[in-house]
Amino acid sequence: MKQVIVVNESLALPRGKLAAQVAHAAIDAFLEAPAKAQQRWLRDGMPKIVLRGDSEADLRQLLQAARSAGLPASLIEDAGHTVVEAGTVTCLGLGPADDDAINRLTGDRKLLK
Amino acid sequence: MKQVIVVNESLALPRGKLAAQVAHAAIDAFLEAPAKAQQRWLRDGMPKIVLRGDSEADLRQLLQAARSAGLPASLIEDAGHTVVEAGTVTCLGLGPADDDAINRLTGDRKLLK
Repeated sequence: MKQVIVVNESLALPRGKLAAQVAHAAIDAFLEAPAKAQQRWLRDGMPKIVLRGDSEADLRQLLQAARSAGLPASLIEDAGHTVVEAGTVTCLGLGPADDDAINRLTGDRKLLK
Repeated sequence: MKQVIVVNESLALPRGKLAAQVAHAAIDAFLEAPAKAQQRWLRDGMPKIVLRGDSEADLRQLLQAARSAGLPASLIEDAGHTVVEAGTVTCLGLGPADDDAINRLTGDRKLLK
């Protein structure tokens, strides 16, 4: 089991803003997951990785692919009070779900350093 | 209601690593909160901010203060496979709880930019 958060790197968000958005995606996608997946993932120690996305369009495509595959997914749009405009898509939370199911959708993406 | 995540900035974690640790703290502290606090915070749109901490000692002191105040809190130690040594304290999740209760403990801290 794992969770992946894909970040819209076209925004070049500052560190604190980025971290808050990723946390939002992680909780939101977690809450979308079935109870069994939640429990297995918590038991595994909540493994999660943060990956690079290119753009809002990239994240929207991935959201559709996740929904088609029946995976919990949550696209985060920022309220836009501070750093970015309201409605800006900052990141996508995917899972917790089986590693294989997540890897089929995101296996070719790079880690966000 | 809000949640705060305080980061050990002495580590100068890279962006992706930082985001994953903050997400871990956010979920863990959320799961420690009473069901009523969870529900109120979700209804409010999960407000969360990321603040600067100076050191591991700083975060440990804040953890004790949070426990004394009866607030949900979770200190995150990294498993240390990659960027930092195992057991390194990377961040502290605090809340969701009432704004006033959180502010009493963290009101003088700076936002992580």
